Amino acid sequence: MKLKIALLPGDGIGPEVTAQAVKCLQAVEETFGHEFEYVEAVVGAAAMDKSGDPLPEKTLELCKNSDAVLFGAIGDPKYDNDPDAKVRPEQGLLRLRKELGLFCNIRPIKVFPTLMEKSPLKKKVIAGTDFVIYRELTSGIYFGDKSVSADGTSATDVCTYTESEISRIAHLAFKAAKRRRKKLTLIDKANVLESSRLWRRTVGKIGESYPEVALDFMFIDNAAMQLVLKPSQFDVILTENMFGDILSDEGSAVGGSLGLLPSASTGDNHALFEPVHGSYPQATGKDIANPVASILSAAMLLDHFKLDEESRAIVIAVLKSIKKGIVSPDLNTSSKYGTNHIGDFISANI
Amino acid sequence: MKLKIALLPGDGIGPEVTAQAVKCLQAVEETFGHEFEYVEAVVGAAAMDKSGDPLPEKTLELCKNSDAVLFGAIGDPKYDNDPDAKVRPEQGLLRLRKELGLFCNIRPIKVFPTLMEKSPLKKKVIAGTDFVIYRELTSGIYFGDKSVSADGTSATDVCTYTESEISRIAHLAFKAAKRRRKKLTLIDKANVLESSRLWRRTVGKIGESYPEVALDFMFIDNAAMQLVLKPSQFDVILTENMFGDILSDEGSAVGGSLGLLPSASTGDNHALFEPVHGSYPQATGKDIANPVASILSAAMLLDHFKLDEESRAIVIAVLKSIKKGIVSPDLNTSSKYGTNHIGDFISANI
Ligand SMILES: CC(C)[C@H](C(=O)O)[C@@H](O)C(=O)O
Ligand SMILES: CC(C)[C@H](C(=O)O)[C@@H](O)C(=O)O
Repeated sequence: MKLKIALLPGDGIGPEVTAQAVKCLQAVEETFGHEFEYVEAVVGAAAMDKSGDPLPEKTLELCKNSDAVLFGAIGDPKYDNDPDAKVRPEQGLLRLRKELGLFCNIRPIKVFPTLMEKSPLKKKVIAGTDFVIYRELTSGIYFGDKSVSADGTSATDVCTYTESEISRIAHLAFKAAKRRRKKLTLIDKANVLESSRLWRRTVGKIGESYPEVALDFMFIDNAAMQLVLKPSQFDVILTENMFGDILSDEGSAVGGSLGLLPSASTGDNHALFEPVHGSYPQATGKDIANPVASILSAAMLLDHFKLDEESRAIVIAVLKSIKKGIVSPDLNTSSKYGTNHIGDFISANI
Repeated sequence: MKLKIALLPGDGIGPEVTAQAVKCLQAVEETFGHEFEYVEAVVGAAAMDKSGDPLPEKTLELCKNSDAVLFGAIGDPKYDNDPDAKVRPEQGLLRLRKELGLFCNIRPIKVFPTLMEKSPLKKKVIAGTDFVIYRELTSGIYFGDKSVSADGTSATDVCTYTESEISRIAHLAFKAAKRRRKKLTLIDKANVLESSRLWRRTVGKIGESYPEVALDFMFIDNAAMQLVLKPSQFDVILTENMFGDILSDEGSAVGGSLGLLPSASTGDNHALFEPVHGSYPQATGKDIANPVASILSAAMLLDHFKLDEESRAIVIAVLKSIKKGIVSPDLNTSSKYGTNHIGDFISANI
């Protein structure tokens, strides 16, 4: 298969970990006889440093003309604590999601048995945890109108959802549930929000065409609690943009291995793959970042193009590296293996 | 001291646990020579069953004419899963908060050393956890405009904050931090929301008049993660309404003992005290509910009127009950003590 992959390494540890994912994709090309073309472009703070724009036109064009985007990380502390800044690195990512129509963010959270002791949760609490979050990614309060009153003393954000925005991701989530343990939990705040009630109505209706999937509803506050008390109760979680942001980060903490979690963001015509972790500026350039989340994001990319065997080859190589203890310091504080070495090991084992 | 206390037991286990808190307040009256008057009124599903209104005018009037409100719990599953319902039990509580001007919700979360093993988190993760959440309670997306398009295919919620709404609770949170470990963390989503940027600007400015308090900022997604990874890092958390709802429930799971957590909601002229837990319908009438959260809410009520010694007497009696193992099944599955017995024991020890 021929694929054109846009590489957007972004900020902080983004470039280092993306480089390891590319090594693995190259190993897949060789082993399975594919032809991937990689074209790199800047995004986020890295792009702002160059041109002031966190998503330059050239980068966007490249993404639109590629089969997939492999994304690193975004964000730089130097742009963080200025509430008056007009442009922020994050806007690059948000605009990219919107422009590419990536409405469906998929974050699988699974506890690796060999790494269970890394979780802050007790073993008996996390045992069996294996769920996936379907987060709506291009609407809600992230993309609604924003305004500040003329005198600056009042600020407003608007959260709007439409039935069609809800229904397109709901169908994907129900299909995923059908392939998994057949349980779908819609998380909302329907006892307070009108938009949540639209979610509940719409998803309830769609659920009727998936009789094999057990649908239940949970309020976001209770969900944030249940994710800590009994994460194994979840199979597929479906939720809106902001709640998905919160739950997926909380979920990754529960697993205890943020450095291992990949994600996919898909739309009708485009797809982007990125680690769940952020730009981790303190670790930049130190060869200590965990490349596995980025490498597993590359595996999700292959999945997306139905290259199942290829994707599995990456996952197996990753499991081998973990089993052999070839892991970064976040997983084993006394580890002497660096980002690069881990990337070399995993790609060599594909 | 003379106090008129409005009792709003509400739904589910609300009445059972509130009754135990009243026993303790009566013991305080006797021991310390105070005179408390209790007047009961309906709210929530219990009120809807009677009159269709989750906050009848009579109940609201009583609360306005009382020195404090002792609240039980709200919510009944029979009203939950109907997204088309025009009236919901929760509206009773929301309207009450708004009408009484209870803008500041205070939820202390502390790990009882003797109960540490109840937490889903590992001992080394929760050790030392002792923080308090200051949640804005009468504004934000909870109380902004809500609308549904004429054809019902689109729904909107609006989140607005004003500088004065932010500043009045911020001052209370800074003052609390001054009395505690002198750290305040503002939690927001300033990289996406305009209202969050107003929070950051306003709280940053106010922070200058509290130089002894270390102020930091955290994004809500990261906070949801940090609360699981390292809850002991927090002292005072300040946040807006919706984020506070989510974080306080998550925080209570971290402590592992939702049945122990009280809360206070205060305003310029009124104050309401309620357990953090909900109406727990499955346990209703079984004499198995944990009354401690409600009893400790009564202790917060006494604190509010500067009856420090009286409040401490309740806390000490509660600690004694826990030490002696006179606890409900949520804390010890083989416990044979019921709600009533625990209330009797604690009140007898005041
Ligand atoms: C960087 C930020 C805007 C982004 C979000 O909130 O969506 C991030 O937290 C994520 O979850 O991908
Ligand atoms: C019952 C509900 C409306 C309420 C809220 O969301 O504020 C509850 O969850 C709480 O935290 O007190």
